[in-house]
Amino acid sequence: MRAAGDVRIENVPDSTIASPTDAVVRVTRAAICGTDLWPYKGGPNEPDQRMGHEAIGIVEAVGGEVSSLKRGQLVVMPYTCSDGTCVFCREGLNTACVHRAFIGTGRGLDGAQAEALRVPWADGTLVPLPLGEDDELMPSLLTLSDVMGTGHHAAVVAEVGAGKTAAVLGDGAVGLCGVIAAKRLGAEQIIVMGRHEDRIAVAKEFGATDVVSERGEEAIERVHELTDGEGAHSVLECVGTWQSTETAIGIARPGGTVGRVGIAQDETIPASVTAFFANVRIGGGPAPTRAYIEELLPDVLEGRIEPGKVFDRVVGLDGVPDGYRAMSDRESIKVMVTP
Amino acid sequence: MRAAGDVRIENVPDSTIASPTDAVVRVTRAAICGTDLWPYKGGPNEPDQRMGHEAIGIVEAVGGEVSSLKRGQLVVMPYTCSDGTCVFCREGLNTACVHRAFIGTGRGLDGAQAEALRVPWADGTLVPLPLGEDDELMPSLLTLSDVMGTGHHAAVVAEVGAGKTAAVLGDGAVGLCGVIAAKRLGAEQIIVMGRHEDRIAVAKEFGATDVVSERGEEAIERVHELTDGEGAHSVLECVGTWQSTETAIGIARPGGTVGRVGIAQDETIPASVTAFFANVRIGGGPAPTRAYIEELLPDVLEGRIEPGKVFDRVVGLDGVPDGYRAMSDRESIKVMVTP
Repeated sequence: MRAAGDVRIENVPDSTIASPTDAVVRVTRAAICGTDLWPYKGGPNEPDQRMGHEAIGIVEAVGGEVSSLKRGQLVVMPYTCSDGTCVFCREGLNTACVHRAFIGTGRGLDGAQAEALRVPWADGTLVPLPLGEDDELMPSLLTLSDVMGTGHHAAVVAEVGAGKTAAVLGDGAVGLCGVIAAKRLGAEQIIVMGRHEDRIAVAKEFGATDVVSERGEEAIERVHELTDGEGAHSVLECVGTWQSTETAIGIARPGGTVGRVGIAQDETIPASVTAFFANVRIGGGPAPTRAYIEELLPDVLEGRIEPGKVFDRVVGLDGVPDGYRAMSDRESIKVMVTP
Repeated sequence: MRAAGDVRIENVPDSTIASPTDAVVRVTRAAICGTDLWPYKGGPNEPDQRMGHEAIGIVEAVGGEVSSLKRGQLVVMPYTCSDGTCVFCREGLNTACVHRAFIGTGRGLDGAQAEALRVPWADGTLVPLPLGEDDELMPSLLTLSDVMGTGHHAAVVAEVGAGKTAAVLGDGAVGLCGVIAAKRLGAEQIIVMGRHEDRIAVAKEFGATDVVSERGEEAIERVHELTDGEGAHSVLECVGTWQSTETAIGIARPGGTVGRVGIAQDETIPASVTAFFANVRIGGGPAPTRAYIEELLPDVLEGRIEPGKVFDRVVGLDGVPDGYRAMSDRESIKVMVTP
């Protein structure tokens, strides 16, 4: 990304092993993420950053200290590189790894919207997949890089559980994966909040039981109408704006929890007094998707969840710039890239 | 309280049963709370409110629908009246009771800094005590009305557990009870943050292992120095100001939790981006002390915890105005009232 709105496919030197803990991965599937749209639309922007942080690919080379991977192996790459051994990795919070590196954010790192990329801390980061590179499960497996793990994180933080009511703010790919996660964790009522018919249709397929298309105070009223006046036990905040966060807190039931995974855009959290007097908890952040792969992978492999349905467009590398445009214009929910 | 700074003891008509679910309680012990100081210092102020929300006393009369209490019984009164039967009471969040009433906040309710008071929803609210009214345990039992349960709530919300590090912001009576609660729940390291020598001495007696007297960025640095650079797993925010909340989030470990019990003074929560990227949870609110009495009462009765040590001054009713002054001037940690 040369600048906001300016995504180009350019030839760069081949990726190589720079550290003994690196791997080089030839990308077989990548994706464009809602997060990629923040700099595209003019948000904070590392100059000339290489984009893309979701990938499946084939290990092409490994550094001398990489012990668990070998050339030719198919792997899925979580969006955060982590060493797998530090105190935070051992606790399952690999996004707080003392060596963490966020792929596809510039800062000297490669991006996954490419033929290949260098992956730091390969042992701690990459997860082998027991399938061929063109298996029909690839779209769903690719979501384990980010969006499915992120939707799951929202649901886990929001303490979704059997018989509870979950409300999901945002009908983007993460919100839709949040619906899958809420259903998977046993939510009885799943309210999706959004207004795009195509996305709402996917949400219903994933298990949403109610739809709220209002916003702000009206949305808060509607959710209370749908929940005996009590509000939702678990609120999955998958947008990240001030308004959506305020609504998330407003629809939470007393004693309920908001799980934030939409990247926080503001320096403060709204509705402090409302949250306080209702004993509403607010948690969340970058999802430790590496830690969640172990839990989610069997459900994908055995077809119990199909998060790959969030991809409604596939492009080659040349199609990536138009893929950004299509997602930005909301023509597409999420774009898969096949380099 | 006639106005900010103007507390008077006045003769009013005797309390009487107004609803069949009421009890009238003759107060044997009451207290002045840090919360009472907000209106005293000029905060939001119900005109001419009757003050005091912590009490132990003798049941003098009960309404026709009160079934679990009888005249002559010694009871402790949590600061929130609650029906004990609604969905939130059944879940242990009696501060969200559909019939909740906050004693000592005006709004037509009596206060506990008095000879007697009317207690709504007596069955759901009052808890009998198996002792005589002058037992030496009275100060500690009185803290179950509010401050001990509130410190416990901060610790529970902040997920204090065995082997964890807890940091307590605030060296008032609630913060000191938070130290007791953190120790009781198994915290290995307990950092108390405050700068009043008398209070710090009590905190150490209660189990604090470290003291941080700095504020703001310096306090955040000090706590990181004390915790291998990681921060505290559990942060008990017992102040409620913007600065203390910002510090609380800043000292939390990635994946850690802030439990807020200092009454939220601001419409927003600071440090949203910091909390988000560290996956720090923020919870808390008015403590459901009614629900906690069952858990805490045996420890008080058997002397395992002695929260009554937060009282360092005892006054009769005539001494209440000076008690407010003494707490406001930080001459006293907490004042007990013996009507």
